[in-house]
Amino acid sequence: MAQKPTIPKGTRDFSPIQMAKRNYIFNTIKDVFLLYGYQQIETPAMENLSTLMGKYGDEGDKLLFKVLNSGDYLKKVPGELLSSRDHVHMIPCISEKGLRYDLTVPFARYVVMHRDELQFPFKRFQIQPVWRADRPQKGRYREFYQCDADVVGSDSLINEIELLAMIDEVFKRFGVNIVIKVNNRKVLSGIADVIGAPDKLVDITVAIDKIDKIGIDNVNEELKEKGLSQEAVDQLEPLLNLKGSNAQKLDTLEQLLAVSETGKKGVEELRFVLGHVEQLGLKATVELDVSLARGLNYYTGTILEVKACDVEMGSITGGGRYDNLTGVFGMPGTSGVGISFGADRIYDVLNTLDLYPSDTISSTKVLFVNFGQKEAAASLHYVMQLRARGISAELFPDNAKMKKQLSYANGKHVPYVAMVGETEMASGTITLKNMETGEQSNLSLDQVVDMVK
Amino acid sequence: MAQKPTIPKGTRDFSPIQMAKRNYIFNTIKDVFLLYGYQQIETPAMENLSTLMGKYGDEGDKLLFKVLNSGDYLKKVPGELLSSRDHVHMIPCISEKGLRYDLTVPFARYVVMHRDELQFPFKRFQIQPVWRADRPQKGRYREFYQCDADVVGSDSLINEIELLAMIDEVFKRFGVNIVIKVNNRKVLSGIADVIGAPDKLVDITVAIDKIDKIGIDNVNEELKEKGLSQEAVDQLEPLLNLKGSNAQKLDTLEQLLAVSETGKKGVEELRFVLGHVEQLGLKATVELDVSLARGLNYYTGTILEVKACDVEMGSITGGGRYDNLTGVFGMPGTSGVGISFGADRIYDVLNTLDLYPSDTISSTKVLFVNFGQKEAAASLHYVMQLRARGISAELFPDNAKMKKQLSYANGKHVPYVAMVGETEMASGTITLKNMETGEQSNLSLDQVVDMVK
Repeated sequence: MAQKPTIPKGTRDFSPIQMAKRNYIFNTIKDVFLLYGYQQIETPAMENLSTLMGKYGDEGDKLLFKVLNSGDYLKKVPGELLSSRDHVHMIPCISEKGLRYDLTVPFARYVVMHRDELQFPFKRFQIQPVWRADRPQKGRYREFYQCDADVVGSDSLINEIELLAMIDEVFKRFGVNIVIKVNNRKVLSGIADVIGAPDKLVDITVAIDKIDKIGIDNVNEELKEKGLSQEAVDQLEPLLNLKGSNAQKLDTLEQLLAVSETGKKGVEELRFVLGHVEQLGLKATVELDVSLARGLNYYTGTILEVKACDVEMGSITGGGRYDNLTGVFGMPGTSGVGISFGADRIYDVLNTLDLYPSDTISSTKVLFVNFGQKEAAASLHYVMQLRARGISAELFPDNAKMKKQLSYANGKHVPYVAMVGETEMASGTITLKNMETGEQSNLSLDQVVDMVK
Repeated sequence: MAQKPTIPKGTRDFSPIQMAKRNYIFNTIKDVFLLYGYQQIETPAMENLSTLMGKYGDEGDKLLFKVLNSGDYLKKVPGELLSSRDHVHMIPCISEKGLRYDLTVPFARYVVMHRDELQFPFKRFQIQPVWRADRPQKGRYREFYQCDADVVGSDSLINEIELLAMIDEVFKRFGVNIVIKVNNRKVLSGIADVIGAPDKLVDITVAIDKIDKIGIDNVNEELKEKGLSQEAVDQLEPLLNLKGSNAQKLDTLEQLLAVSETGKKGVEELRFVLGHVEQLGLKATVELDVSLARGLNYYTGTILEVKACDVEMGSITGGGRYDNLTGVFGMPGTSGVGISFGADRIYDVLNTLDLYPSDTISSTKVLFVNFGQKEAAASLHYVMQLRARGISAELFPDNAKMKKQLSYANGKHVPYVAMVGETEMASGTITLKNMETGEQSNLSLDQVVDMVK
């Protein structure tokens, strides 16, 4: 009864080379997180639906993967729901758990449940998969990793500065040139105030978030449809088009937003953050971009987004400050700020620019050819001695044809092949072949170690 | 509308200290896997139910977590199933995906799907969570990590030898003294042959698997209930009670199983594996244990199990050889051998014996106290310089009371606290406090680096 196996659409297997590259990405980010004093946590893949529902909007609720209750899951379903095939209202009767949709809501739930054992400000990072029943398309998957760092329980803008420095360090290690675009939601509020449309803040942020995609003219059109006056639209455009250095932009904004308390606060926050960041001398370009809005409405202060300079690719990292992450779980007033690295896009950027270190995909350094039982036994001892010196080594387990053994080495990107036949056994040496140059030499074990290390 | 949040029963949050300890375990195992030439893969959390169902027995099918189809999942349900509330037969209509139950079946599915791009023998490892709707109890969770290494596509017993050496290396690094018990399914078959009950092999393995739990008398009782004659039971007992060295046991077995071809083959395999392993001089005690059966019926050759010597805890690692992993997916004749480390039990063993390296749980090495805006700016520069030298450091983001800042450092197990106040700023120095001894010294940045490195 052989089936031809498949995997669910929108999901992926990660084969050794992909895994090695992904591990390089996650380990690099993780090292930087730890260097900055962030601590790792993990939460379960399944959360109660009561924790997840209502947190991502109606559309999000639909995109949650729901897990069927065990046993007789129909037990609690009222007859009328069954007969009317009311699949929507039946869900709470047959499913009480769902798969994690992002890392933010589980983190908020975690903070509330563990509040008594945590040190605040709590700096955590989390690298785990999330699941969304989105329609799969190029670059969009139903299972993908998120890679988040957040600080909760501190209003200090030092956290923003630290996060920007952390982003800089990560991409410096990757060798990717980046621009970090920074804005502040309070500045956007201030703009809504001064153009006389404070009630239209959400419409304004949603619209200007699309400038890159649809252009300023379409944005203006959309704003007018949403009820903004022509005058307001005219006032808005130059604000989104500020020119000059960050300091010059801030000076202009300060004047333009002088009548808005919120706007002034936003400018002040930006000045503090950008000023300190400039002093730290980051490698990345940090650019104030008033047209940066970020769709998510829970942001309340600093917002930021990262783009790669040398490759066309959307935002590869993003984040911002939010004021009430845990309120929905009964713990109000906890401010936080966080960032999220887009692992799949960073993977594509590093592939496009060919930036993986050369040893990323090689696992085994030396493969010993298997010439038969006696030679294999001798080789096994060498293999163990190489491993004891920290060199990844293996013996081909079967006495297969040389061609097969060498093709195994090639397929696995093994840089050195070692041969111990009768001659070598008699002389206590190893013939080592460099798989790149084809060069062969007869060496002692110590010389092999020196060569391959 | 604040809810008091909870997590699904049988699942766990992993907080920073637990995560650090678990990372230590997984990283140690992973390092050894890589040293031995194993390559990592990952498979999706969700598999098609057609991949999973029927692979774990009827009980396993019930314990699979099933994921509700998206959209109108009732669409394809025939009316009569709804009206008769036939929850069993309705499952295939409303759910086509389930959560991974182990790593073995997804691995088999992976090998078949990717056969054309893999190098055989394929040595893979995989460290991912699995989910089972088991009744949660002490030490048994509904979500837990498995940590498997397998070689497929090679009959060579060198793979067994390598796996035993790998187990030895892992526990040597942990500092845990272990006994590796080894047996061979062919020896068990041979025993069934010579006691005249070749058709009772499964009953015999199932029964003797329980010797440790219920004792030999109850095992004998169970065997008689299963239809074994008193004579057969009498013949079996001494076979399970062999004394002496491995070589002596093998000699005895060889005589006793002389009439069984399968039995003789099993003895020969054990002799080869145990002989080579003895020559490698492992730290672990490797012990032939004919009463080792391991419940899973897909094993066909070597089987093994690991116990910790200095703490009472069931098997902490196990494995064996199987002959037809991928046959069910249309790729027959692929032999493999693998092991699985029991991460949760190893975690408990290391906790009980207090074997975690002292730096496992400390993330930040130096915390700078925040004395206000000017001091914080100066401290931030020091923090960045320490990080540039690879030292994990942070600045407390808020100008909070000293007591709060020090208690944060204590809670996070930070070994050094640095203070840069007005005096230090004037002299360009740092006051460093050792949090364990309470000692304080006034140092230059370079001296701080030397001190904490």
